[in-house]
Amino acid sequence: MSRRQLLVDEKKVLKRLESLGKEIVTQILKGEPPKLVIPVRTLSNTVWDKKNKILRLGSRKAVRDFFDIGESKRFMQTVLMLSIVIKARREGDYPTIRDLYYTGKHTIEYYDEFDRKRREETWNDQRESNAVIQDIEVATGLLREHMGIMHDAKGKIVGNLVIRSKGYDIDLSKMGSGAYAIPPNVDKIEIRKVDVDYVLVVEKDAIFERLNEEEFWKKNNCILMTGRGQPDRSTRRMLRRLWEEYELPVYILTDCDAYGFYIYSVYKSGSISLSYESERLATPGARFIGVTVTDIDEYKIPRNYIIKATERDVKRAKELMGYPWFKESKDWMKQLNLFIKRQEKIEIEALSGHGFKFLARTYIPNKIKGRKWIE
Amino acid sequence: MSRRQLLVDEKKVLKRLESLGKEIVTQILKGEPPKLVIPVRTLSNTVWDKKNKILRLGSRKAVRDFFDIGESKRFMQTVLMLSIVIKARREGDYPTIRDLYYTGKHTIEYYDEFDRKRREETWNDQRESNAVIQDIEVATGLLREHMGIMHDAKGKIVGNLVIRSKGYDIDLSKMGSGAYAIPPNVDKIEIRKVDVDYVLVVEKDAIFERLNEEEFWKKNNCILMTGRGQPDRSTRRMLRRLWEEYELPVYILTDCDAYGFYIYSVYKSGSISLSYESERLATPGARFIGVTVTDIDEYKIPRNYIIKATERDVKRAKELMGYPWFKESKDWMKQLNLFIKRQEKIEIEALSGHGFKFLARTYIPNKIKGRKWIE
Repeated sequence: MSRRQLLVDEKKVLKRLESLGKEIVTQILKGEPPKLVIPVRTLSNTVWDKKNKILRLGSRKAVRDFFDIGESKRFMQTVLMLSIVIKARREGDYPTIRDLYYTGKHTIEYYDEFDRKRREETWNDQRESNAVIQDIEVATGLLREHMGIMHDAKGKIVGNLVIRSKGYDIDLSKMGSGAYAIPPNVDKIEIRKVDVDYVLVVEKDAIFERLNEEEFWKKNNCILMTGRGQPDRSTRRMLRRLWEEYELPVYILTDCDAYGFYIYSVYKSGSISLSYESERLATPGARFIGVTVTDIDEYKIPRNYIIKATERDVKRAKELMGYPWFKESKDWMKQLNLFIKRQEKIEIEALSGHGFKFLARTYIPNKIKGRKWIE
Repeated sequence: MSRRQLLVDEKKVLKRLESLGKEIVTQILKGEPPKLVIPVRTLSNTVWDKKNKILRLGSRKAVRDFFDIGESKRFMQTVLMLSIVIKARREGDYPTIRDLYYTGKHTIEYYDEFDRKRREETWNDQRESNAVIQDIEVATGLLREHMGIMHDAKGKIVGNLVIRSKGYDIDLSKMGSGAYAIPPNVDKIEIRKVDVDYVLVVEKDAIFERLNEEEFWKKNNCILMTGRGQPDRSTRRMLRRLWEEYELPVYILTDCDAYGFYIYSVYKSGSISLSYESERLATPGARFIGVTVTDIDEYKIPRNYIIKATERDVKRAKELMGYPWFKESKDWMKQLNLFIKRQEKIEIEALSGHGFKFLARTYIPNKIKGRKWIE
C-alpha cells in the first residue's frame, strides 16, 4: 500500500456528518438562532492555483440563517438531506442520489399569516436535492461517494495493477477480454501493486475494447482506462489517485474535435463551476497525445476522412480558450486557434486509413516515446 | 463447461468468411456473372415463432447480381467489406465498426458513357458500411462479434459464477465494490461454473451499484447484471447464454414507463427490424418483475412521486401493444392499457419512499418468491 493512500474510514465519515448536525443542536440548546456556515460554491469564489494548476474553492463562506426568510428553505433542505444521509450511513444503506431525492420529497402543510392553508414541497426537482448534497460536501470536506451515495459509474480499467476491495485482491491484468468496471466510491479501493510505466486514457469505449483485445496494455506495460466519453467522477478519481499516489504519467487520447478537447480538460482540471470537486478529482499532470489538429497534416489524413466542424464545435473551442489551463499553454492555444481557423475535425478511427495496426504500433508509441504530447 | 456451450473458433470463423469470397471467385473463373445470395433482412421476411416465442428470419433470399446496375454498388460494397474483415481476421486485428467504415472509405474515379470524369465514394456514411456488415452476418450465420469486430460494450455482471477468458479463470463473486465489464464478444468467454438460483437484470446502473454494494446477489444467491439502459448486443448475448445454457430464470427490473417496458422487450425478444440477431441475442424466457402500473396502488406510491407520462410515452406504449410477445400476454395488455389510460409513470427509486431497504428486502423477493412477475 502506498504511503500516501488515504482510505476513507466509514466511522470517520459518519462522525464528520454527525458533527455538522450537532453544531446546529448546540446552537438551539444555547438559545442561539440556528445557522450553517458553508463555503461558497459560486464561480466568484473559485481560485485558479497557478502553481499546482488546479482550481480551488476560495475562502468565502456563506452563513445560512434559519431565521432569515430568504435562507430558511435552503437551511431546512440541508438539514433534511443531512438527516437522511446520516440515517443511511448508520444503517449501512447505499442510496442513489435519486433515492435521496424521493426519500426527502414530501409536502409540508402550514397556515400562513392570514390563516390560509398552504402547501410547500420540500423540493420540486432533483436539482434542489443535489444542490444541498453539494453543500454538505463542501461543509464536511467529504465527497458524496464517501457518504455512500451511489451514482452511475461508467469507467473501465485494465493493466498490471492489483487492487483490494471488500477483502478481495483483484488482479486487473487477469480480466481476459473484459475489464474491471470502476465502482462509484474509488476511495474505498486499496491500490496494492502497480507495475506499469504510464496510464493511457482513451475517450471511446470501442477503442478501449480494441486495445484491450489486442493487449496493448500488456505489450506497452501501461494501464488502460476509459470514461466512455465525458468521464464520471469515479473514473476521474481513479485516474487522479494513480497519478498522485504512484506518480504515473497520464496520457489522454480523444477525437480531434472540441468535444474531445473538452474531455481532456475535464480529466485534467474539471469544471470551473464545480471547483471544489477538482481538488480531488482533477489530474493536472494529464497530457494530451491526440488527435491534434496538426496531426491532420503530419499523419496525412485523407481529405474524405475529414469532418466539417459545426458551429457548436467552434463555439466550444472558443470557450476552451478562456480556461486558464488552456490559456497558459502555448501548444494548446496554437491547436485551438488552428481548429477554429480550419474548422476541421477527425476521429481517432480515421488513423485506421494507415492500417489497423497503425494506432497501437505507431501513433501512440510515437507520441509517448517521442514526447509529442501537449499539456 | 456446460454441454451446450458453442465457443466460436477463430479458424472456423475465418474459413466461413473466406468461403463466401471463394464462391464469387469460383463464379468468375467459370465465366458466370458474379452474384451473392443473401437472406432478406426486411420486416416482410420476419417470422414470429409462436412456440419458441422468438423472431426468426424467413426463408426468402435475395440475389445480389454484379451485372444488375441497381445491385452492383451494394455488391461491391459487400465484397469490399468482406475483404477488409478477412484481412483483419488473418492478421489478428480487432477493428471497430467505425474503423471498418474509414478503412473501406475511398473515392473511385471513373469515366461515364459520355467520357466524363466521375467520382463515387465507396460509402458516404456509416449506415452504408454497417448495412453490408449485417449482410455478411446473415450470409455467413456469424454475428459481427464472432468476426472480431469491436463496439461499445456497456454491460456489467457480478455473482456466483466463474468464467474463463484468455486463459484466466475470473471469479465474478470477487469483484469487490466493482464489477466485471462484459466484453464485446461474449461467445469467446467460457462459462465454467454457475452456482445461483436466478439472474436479476436491472435497467439502471445506479441501482446496480447500490445492489452490488449491498451484496444483494450474495444474500439472494443470484447473478446481478445491468445493460445501463437500452442494452447492447453483448449484454443481451450474455443473458441469453445464462438462460439457455444454464436454464436460469431471468428477471428484469425497470422503471414503470414505456421506455422501461421497451428495455424489457429488447432483452426478451429484440427488435423486429433486426430479427436475425434475436435468434441468438433474445431471452424469450425473461420475466418482468416491475415496476408495473398496478404497483402504484399495490405499493401505495405517494401521489407526489408520480410523474405524468409524456405523449411520446403513450405513443411508444401503443406501439408495444402491437408486438406479438406483448399481444399474446394478457398480463402485459392489462398493464399497457392501464398505462395509456392513467398516463402515470414511476421510477424504481420511488420505492425508496418505504425506506432504503424496501427494494432489496421486500419488493424484489416478494415479486420473485411470490411469483408476481408478468411475461
